[in-house]
Amino acid sequence: MAIARQLDVQLIAHSQFTPPSGTGWEPQDGVSDAESLVEFAGRACYESFDRPNPRTAENDAYLRHLMEVGHHGPLEHAHATMYVRGISRAAANELMRHRHFSFSQLSQRFVPTESAEVVVPQAIAEDEELKRLLLNAADEARFVYDELLDALEQRLADEPNALLRRKQARQAARAILPNATESRVVVSGNLRTWRHFIAVRATEHADLEIRTLAVRCLRVLSDVAPTLFADFQIQQLADGSEMAISSLVSEM
Amino acid sequence: MAIARQLDVQLIAHSQFTPPSGTGWEPQDGVSDAESLVEFAGRACYESFDRPNPRTAENDAYLRHLMEVGHHGPLEHAHATMYVRGISRAAANELMRHRHFSFSQLSQRFVPTESAEVVVPQAIAEDEELKRLLLNAADEARFVYDELLDALEQRLADEPNALLRRKQARQAARAILPNATESRVVVSGNLRTWRHFIAVRATEHADLEIRTLAVRCLRVLSDVAPTLFADFQIQQLADGSEMAISSLVSEM
Amino acid sequence: MAIARQLDVQLIAHSQFTPPSGTGWEPQDGVSDAESLVEFAGRACYESFDRPNPRTAENDAYLRHLMEVGHHGPLEHAHATMYVRGISRAAANELMRHRHFSFSQLSQRFVPTESAEVVVPQAIAEDEELKRLLLNAADEARFVYDELLDALEQRLADEPNALLRRKQARQAARAILPNATESRVVVSGNLRTWRHFIAVRATEHADLEIRTLAVRCLRVLSDVAPTLFADFQIQQLADGSEMAISSLVSEM
Amino acid sequence: MAIARQLDVQLIAHSQFTPPSGTGWEPQDGVSDAESLVEFAGRACYESFDRPNPRTAENDAYLRHLMEVGHHGPLEHAHATMYVRGISRAAANELMRHRHFSFSQLSQRFVPTESAEVVVPQAIAEDEELKRLLLNAADEARFVYDELLDALEQRLADEPNALLRRKQARQAARAILPNATESRVVVSGNLRTWRHFIAVRATEHADLEIRTLAVRCLRVLSDVAPTLFADFQIQQLADGSEMAISSLVSEM
Repeated sequence: MAIARQLDVQLIAHSQFTPPSGTGWEPQDGVSDAESLVEFAGRACYESFDRPNPRTAENDAYLRHLMEVGHHGPLEHAHATMYVRGISRAAANELMRHRHFSFSQLSQRFVPTESAEVVVPQAIAEDEELKRLLLNAADEARFVYDELLDALEQRLADEPNALLRRKQARQAARAILPNATESRVVVSGNLRTWRHFIAVRATEHADLEIRTLAVRCLRVLSDVAPTLFADFQIQQLADGSEMAISSLVSEM
Repeated sequence: MAIARQLDVQLIAHSQFTPPSGTGWEPQDGVSDAESLVEFAGRACYESFDRPNPRTAENDAYLRHLMEVGHHGPLEHAHATMYVRGISRAAANELMRHRHFSFSQLSQRFVPTESAEVVVPQAIAEDEELKRLLLNAADEARFVYDELLDALEQRLADEPNALLRRKQARQAARAILPNATESRVVVSGNLRTWRHFIAVRATEHADLEIRTLAVRCLRVLSDVAPTLFADFQIQQLADGSEMAISSLVSEM
Repeated sequence: MAIARQLDVQLIAHSQFTPPSGTGWEPQDGVSDAESLVEFAGRACYESFDRPNPRTAENDAYLRHLMEVGHHGPLEHAHATMYVRGISRAAANELMRHRHFSFSQLSQRFVPTESAEVVVPQAIAEDEELKRLLLNAADEARFVYDELLDALEQRLADEPNALLRRKQARQAARAILPNATESRVVVSGNLRTWRHFIAVRATEHADLEIRTLAVRCLRVLSDVAPTLFADFQIQQLADGSEMAISSLVSEM
Repeated sequence: MAIARQLDVQLIAHSQFTPPSGTGWEPQDGVSDAESLVEFAGRACYESFDRPNPRTAENDAYLRHLMEVGHHGPLEHAHATMYVRGISRAAANELMRHRHFSFSQLSQRFVPTESAEVVVPQAIAEDEELKRLLLNAADEARFVYDELLDALEQRLADEPNALLRRKQARQAARAILPNATESRVVVSGNLRTWRHFIAVRATEHADLEIRTLAVRCLRVLSDVAPTLFADFQIQQLADGSEMAISSLVSEM
């Protein structure tokens, strides 16, 4: 029977900051590395290392100011990497349209898929009958995949290279695998790119699955850089799902 | 019954060039706009508008020289757009990993798919029995899609906005559509990006479907800019499929 | 005596569009190639080739709708190339910070500069005395450049390759050339990138020289794609210079 | 008297890695965070978390294999940030042509430059007389800059906003500042981008100043990710300067 996978998002890497010598500037106590790094890069543009403006002397006030005046460049120096599992191929493909991220995705050409692992859309998961219909259909697709794979491996028996043979058979057989098939992907980007992703994909109008991913990433990043994501407000919609919006609309 | 679609690639836009006044340089007769533009941009770096070097006075010699010394920047000024139909979702997603292209893809969330239109992998298409197996499975997936769509529209009957209701139903129901589902996509890029795409995807090691696309694009681009793609040699492999390689490996 | 250069911007390439066969869609009469291409790409996402919505059946209404809903992707398929002369090195460097453009710039390492050709900032040009001060200083810098060049060529006399010798001498001697030195650059980008450049650089807050360039490009692009730039309004500031703003602020 | 600045490069940020739960894979002892992260991302594509191939079971062998087969994607997940001082505006501008980096550069529009701080090209620094010639010319340019600044501030006296007045005066006056003027810049990029920068700029044919920067960055990055930069060999040229090349030419 097909296995229904749940979304899982883990932060696996982010920027560690060591201030340079020779500027007289020191990071403020209790501020995360990401946010100290962004402050440093912002101050480097005007060498305001002595915090001359009392209104932006504190890290959080300084970062808010950068965002309010639309000076997003310094956010590009801080970086974060997520490992995302339990995402459908369809949603993974939407994610991978964001060209400023870097991706390493589980390959359908190389990895043996031993059982049908699928991501069930929430609207279907809420109805037992529809869920069973989808999982049965995924099992059926899986069955056809296995049949195609066997038959193709026999047809390709002339190919002496076993690895190549299996690869060619898989790349043809996967044609029948559904959009719901689970994918897994390592995603890296700087904080400006992460903000843009959330701004675009956490809105009410986004597809539910990628919206859920965007809100999850927002929560994770709020630990990495609390001030830089504090403008996003998470809200619950009528259907129980979540969205996030920010008043700093210039991000769009 | 599911319909099997064939790959179709059409050039729909490319750069039209008008040389500026005030340089004394004129394009050579019989040279394409794309290749005159690349020559102009190359000469603009050194203002060699009077063609001082007899060995690179002709357009084709000049362009070959740019590529041999790895000076690819000028190729970025010439641009080409293809309309690609009869490509599977799976191959379209591989194509859309190329971040320097721009894409407009047929949406699965908005467009009613009235019959299962699929792209059958060549290894399957060559065997009547396997082809029937795949097409039947695609029909089955299509049947489940329709059932899910109807049931979801009923479940969402409280949503007064009919457009939104259909959109939400489709985005959930498409979970069962297979990788083989036909996609259509408008693809734009400059000639440096197109060269890179062909260099990476037309090799023997690439997936057959995207390799076939890359070789097809190479043929189309050879009309737009004959010299800039002349280094790629198309060869036939043992299985009858085609590949292309270039001796100017620095492209990789 | 140093020569003061004026800004010169010429459109040298843009997208020529041929609609594909097999869609039933034809471009509207009198619409530019760029704008027909953008409409086609937008319609390809939903296969709305029969113009089903009467309110967006006309090209200009359709394009305005794309921009109003923030669907800027289709603008990436249309492309335009400018040849810019009479721009200072300083402004050229600001221009080249726009990473989505492609550039071919006149090299300071390779081209003999026979007389000091400079771009005089407007605030200086308006005062004869200041202008003379700047041009004299540019002449002085040019004189030192020539002295350095001669001395370095003698110091490097052991280098048998004359071309390499001159190149090394020039790359050291140019250290004294001022920011005002004239540069020339070929710039290419898609219409989304051009819109972004104008949105950011034509505002009141931008440096005057690059603002003047942005407004000039806006005028040129308004011929290529009138509707796609119609939201930008050009206004005159108190100092007589121009700026442009758009109510479609999401562009920022 | 003008001050001659020396190149200074400090690593100020890089990726800290925490492996995810649920894969069974653990980083190898003694391997840097950057290199463990790249290995993890590579293995995530094929879920080879149990290190099935004994020849690539060790981190260094695995990373070498990625580079040898041209699978550079995983290198994009690891990130490094440098703070570069003592670089000329001319070389900083060449650096900023690398579009995949992110930059925060000391502004010439906002920061008061109190004394002429310049970077003297090595060929000039080696000759006392030429060095004096350059420093005197820099002093002269600085003197004219100060005169222009004073005169412009008087001309702009009608502008009530003192900040804006100084900004406008500076952006015009800086026209006379030479290429040799010192710049300072924060530079961030992933390890694939850093490898590309070094591959292109550490070669014998690159301008000496940016070549020196590239070799310096290579040394810094060799601490962050020893295996990922081990293919670059540093060599001394006849003039005493350094270059670096790699046998893995596909990087180009």
